[in-house]
Amino acid sequence: MIITLNSTANPSEVKRALIDHGLWVEELVGQGRVQFRVESHSAQVPIEVVQALPGVELVTVRASTHPRVDQQAKVVEVGAHKIGVGQPTAYFAGPCSVESEDHVRRLAAKLRGYGVKFLRGGAFKPRTSPYAFQGHGEPALKWMKKAAAENGMALVTELMGSEERDLVAEFADLIQIGSRNMHNYALLKHVAGAKKPIFLKRGMAATVEEWMGAGEYLLLHGAPAVVFCERGIRSFDPSTRNLLDLSAVAILAGLGQPVVVDPSHAAGRRDLVGPLARAAVAVGAHGVMIETHDAPGHALSDGPQAVLPEQLEQILKGLDALSAGSKA
Amino acid sequence: MIITLNSTANPSEVKRALIDHGLWVEELVGQGRVQFRVESHSAQVPIEVVQALPGVELVTVRASTHPRVDQQAKVVEVGAHKIGVGQPTAYFAGPCSVESEDHVRRLAAKLRGYGVKFLRGGAFKPRTSPYAFQGHGEPALKWMKKAAAENGMALVTELMGSEERDLVAEFADLIQIGSRNMHNYALLKHVAGAKKPIFLKRGMAATVEEWMGAGEYLLLHGAPAVVFCERGIRSFDPSTRNLLDLSAVAILAGLGQPVVVDPSHAAGRRDLVGPLARAAVAVGAHGVMIETHDAPGHALSDGPQAVLPEQLEQILKGLDALSAGSKA
Amino acid sequence: MIITLNSTANPSEVKRALIDHGLWVEELVGQGRVQFRVESHSAQVPIEVVQALPGVELVTVRASTHPRVDQQAKVVEVGAHKIGVGQPTAYFAGPCSVESEDHVRRLAAKLRGYGVKFLRGGAFKPRTSPYAFQGHGEPALKWMKKAAAENGMALVTELMGSEERDLVAEFADLIQIGSRNMHNYALLKHVAGAKKPIFLKRGMAATVEEWMGAGEYLLLHGAPAVVFCERGIRSFDPSTRNLLDLSAVAILAGLGQPVVVDPSHAAGRRDLVGPLARAAVAVGAHGVMIETHDAPGHALSDGPQAVLPEQLEQILKGLDALSAGSKA
Amino acid sequence: MIITLNSTANPSEVKRALIDHGLWVEELVGQGRVQFRVESHSAQVPIEVVQALPGVELVTVRASTHPRVDQQAKVVEVGAHKIGVGQPTAYFAGPCSVESEDHVRRLAAKLRGYGVKFLRGGAFKPRTSPYAFQGHGEPALKWMKKAAAENGMALVTELMGSEERDLVAEFADLIQIGSRNMHNYALLKHVAGAKKPIFLKRGMAATVEEWMGAGEYLLLHGAPAVVFCERGIRSFDPSTRNLLDLSAVAILAGLGQPVVVDPSHAAGRRDLVGPLARAAVAVGAHGVMIETHDAPGHALSDGPQAVLPEQLEQILKGLDALSAGSKA
Repeated sequence: MIITLNSTANPSEVKRALIDHGLWVEELVGQGRVQFRVESHSAQVPIEVVQALPGVELVTVRASTHPRVDQQAKVVEVGAHKIGVGQPTAYFAGPCSVESEDHVRRLAAKLRGYGVKFLRGGAFKPRTSPYAFQGHGEPALKWMKKAAAENGMALVTELMGSEERDLVAEFADLIQIGSRNMHNYALLKHVAGAKKPIFLKRGMAATVEEWMGAGEYLLLHGAPAVVFCERGIRSFDPSTRNLLDLSAVAILAGLGQPVVVDPSHAAGRRDLVGPLARAAVAVGAHGVMIETHDAPGHALSDGPQAVLPEQLEQILKGLDALSAGSKA
Repeated sequence: MIITLNSTANPSEVKRALIDHGLWVEELVGQGRVQFRVESHSAQVPIEVVQALPGVELVTVRASTHPRVDQQAKVVEVGAHKIGVGQPTAYFAGPCSVESEDHVRRLAAKLRGYGVKFLRGGAFKPRTSPYAFQGHGEPALKWMKKAAAENGMALVTELMGSEERDLVAEFADLIQIGSRNMHNYALLKHVAGAKKPIFLKRGMAATVEEWMGAGEYLLLHGAPAVVFCERGIRSFDPSTRNLLDLSAVAILAGLGQPVVVDPSHAAGRRDLVGPLARAAVAVGAHGVMIETHDAPGHALSDGPQAVLPEQLEQILKGLDALSAGSKA
Repeated sequence: MIITLNSTANPSEVKRALIDHGLWVEELVGQGRVQFRVESHSAQVPIEVVQALPGVELVTVRASTHPRVDQQAKVVEVGAHKIGVGQPTAYFAGPCSVESEDHVRRLAAKLRGYGVKFLRGGAFKPRTSPYAFQGHGEPALKWMKKAAAENGMALVTELMGSEERDLVAEFADLIQIGSRNMHNYALLKHVAGAKKPIFLKRGMAATVEEWMGAGEYLLLHGAPAVVFCERGIRSFDPSTRNLLDLSAVAILAGLGQPVVVDPSHAAGRRDLVGPLARAAVAVGAHGVMIETHDAPGHALSDGPQAVLPEQLEQILKGLDALSAGSKA
Repeated sequence: MIITLNSTANPSEVKRALIDHGLWVEELVGQGRVQFRVESHSAQVPIEVVQALPGVELVTVRASTHPRVDQQAKVVEVGAHKIGVGQPTAYFAGPCSVESEDHVRRLAAKLRGYGVKFLRGGAFKPRTSPYAFQGHGEPALKWMKKAAAENGMALVTELMGSEERDLVAEFADLIQIGSRNMHNYALLKHVAGAKKPIFLKRGMAATVEEWMGAGEYLLLHGAPAVVFCERGIRSFDPSTRNLLDLSAVAILAGLGQPVVVDPSHAAGRRDLVGPLARAAVAVGAHGVMIETHDAPGHALSDGPQAVLPEQLEQILKGLDALSAGSKA
């Protein structure tokens, strides 16, 4: 935001008023009218409010690069369930990779009992090594769909390439774009054509603006809605797998955008999943996604970060209490 | 952690058992016994537990670089107040820079009414520009001490150089080392000699291990206790002033270390202070520090991120409810 | 690397010998034999050398996650030209986006005169905003191919989605995978099937290991060769567009991998292109890629970072002199 | 930079002209005159040039936060030697920690033979662990001074606390402020009072602007000159100890600021010291600082990254040839 003062303004007074509104301002150097530059890490203040301050002549701002995202509905419907402002916290759970029909059906039945409404599981897996297990593909989709349907759950699963779109769209209620593909614009355009709501994970080095820009690709090319999912960004500290950025979640929630947190991938550490899930709900996330497995040692991927079903039950009970307390 | 198997072990079975405990393991290549390397972003598992697994011959680990920190008490006493495991959330509030005796006394009286037990304020300010206001120095210490004493509060204030130690130690109950000085080992050693508890902010690019190592300098050289304070680290995203790392808070709290969160400096955005304070309490922080000013436009530094006293009151009421809910 | 000593070893002596070889070592804590852990930022020393040191019983290392990359040829043939160890520095130049047949043909003729052997230009453009120009597509490929053929140049161009593979493979001599797609494993597998050498840009938050792992996907699935291209990674400093990492280039060149540097995208600043190109050649890069345009103000993308043809001529003359001097 | 157009301007034409000058511009949204914002990663263009473009009414810029640095001399005199624009590359070498009088005298004699004019060595060492060797202190200063004097060299050594100022200033020709103290403003002010030129290492998470701001503290408080030294910043990739940022060096050199590169601490890898030193010279650095030890295994700190004297000799011969070639 750039603020140009009129010729009779008292710059110090205007500056104080801007700071009172939570704006970091810097006076620019030059001839002519006094101009202030507002820094990007300022509180969000409507342009009309600034324009109306005594002494202000002109206010200009950067145009939004994601107008459709700015205007999307605050609540997303996924099958029979809803995610977003004013809705109960949406719980997503399930294994990283789906292993067998029997396995996912038994697990889903347990999860339903804990209040999980969204079954997550991988059929196509993005793996850093080409030699790692890449997912069971189509059969896994069928197994999951059956498990979800039996338990009244919506199904969320990731798609990695354009060629998988129609297949995944046939089974998934919410199509996940993983963090490694957030910048994959060809995929975003293509997937949007499936006309399904999208679960868009943040890229590991994406700014909030770039993340919303990826959402714009989806909405512009036909997706009905985007749910944003924070799963940790890259950092210099090896004590967690990624660095969970809850400020970004607070920003999106503050804008009314549907936003979910995945503490499992963020931390990579089972012992931090509970505390980070609590923080996510407290900061305003509309949902949490938690990897769950009844025998992590046998999981086909990411076993160390999966919690046991009984651990999940305790975590979700705590989240329920937290939500109740915070509304009291 | 490096795990060497015995000659009769079944490596796959041992690996599954390790994953069941939340450890990310990688088999190393070489002759002789099978060895597994455990990654740093694994859950914390006691060495005895791993040693006792069938098939395990030898377990070695990196020695702690901060043995005194590892063994410090889980509760720190600061004047009449306590911070740490099992204590009520400690609320720290006050202005970035102290402005006048009258001002800080009036503000402190209000803060006491909201349940704030720790008065914070700056007498010596680290500023990126040498031309910025550098603090009122000794008079500010006296003003704050008076305000704190009148209201039964403990005083926390920052010290920037060795030469200020005795002066600050005379007035402060808890001495703050700012993030820019976390790596200033000469200062750490010197300040420790004041025998006062230290409030140690995390360096803006410090790992959790380095932060705890700075704490070790303090305890080794005479400080009775260290309270850690997370205030955001450096990141590539300009949408917040710094990036609040609540995973680090969860790690420290999980180790029983006293840890506080400063959402004001982390976000730099007044509109995010409330949500991030909530997340801090939910993740397990033992306290929150919130910059507060009754006329931010007149603040001598960091006005845009300060909340008004009445905003603080609402935030703290919400934190009380959250704590109550989470214990229900 | 983990080093286990034998029962008669003198740990201090072994440690000194390891340091003499450039290894950062840490003694691990545990019962049984003494073990040293070697840090990842150590000099590369063959396992046999360490194994042969007096007192060493066992040496284990992490298995390479990219064995095919490790063994690929040190020189890549692209049409009539070569890139790699012992070859003259390969010069890549051309516009960010191709604009018209006439334009690219005139430009190519100039570039040939300066010693440029690789024509680069975009037909399909990855853009952060869905509203930005996305490239002229197939016609642009034809224009570029004609321009390259007329001037005896090889053509390098980027492909964004699997559906473009056959089209791009028909025209390009070297297929570029952009930084936003380095982690797009579905695309890597598919493109590899075109059996053309690949120009693989580093992801903006990818480690060197992950970058080589992406190369492994390509070689495993059929690509004959991979040329790595460093184009800057994400950083906290807004003074350049990205942060050029020449250490990574030194590492790859030291391993005999063909590696090229793109200073234009790294810096985003025309005034830094020359100095950074010089540094790239000095550190051991086998080529440099420089965006060039005769009227940057009319460029369809990235004009501000493009150099003029006459500026390119000066830069390349300087690189020739530098290469000559460094071999003198 | 903010550019306001006059009422008759053609915005598209002005934008093209700005891009032609290497500026990244964005049109701001608002009522009244058209305004362009120029991004920070643009080429440096004098304000007068922009002001003179047809259609431009007003140009404002951020005020420099380091006016004294902007105006300091382009060449710094240190004893009998000079560093800066137009001078031969300054070679700095010596051990990380000084060990004995005899040792440093023997080493210095060798280094002189290779063309090293600046002897570096540590008497006071900043160590991450309080249990690591902290330097020999005052005796080490005397040993180094003697060694430097015998060989006609200038002495560079680090100071960690205010209390060491007078002692270090008595012996050092150039006083080093280490990267961990770049933000230690109390120390900067105090050390400046010694009236000696300062060798200012970049903080591990400091922007170029903040680094220059630290230089401003020094010049404002009495230091006669500042030599900047890049030694790597923090990154997510563990393959080097730090990430050498040669773009920052190009920026400072382009501004005429004296700037030196320390590839030893940046990489931490002996095998990369030579290539990175070459890149430093090629990008425009006025000097390089290389840790050198005749028996790295016996070094009291940082042995793995030290090169042997005979390796240094080869590296410096290569740098001489590179400089000659690049001027040819």
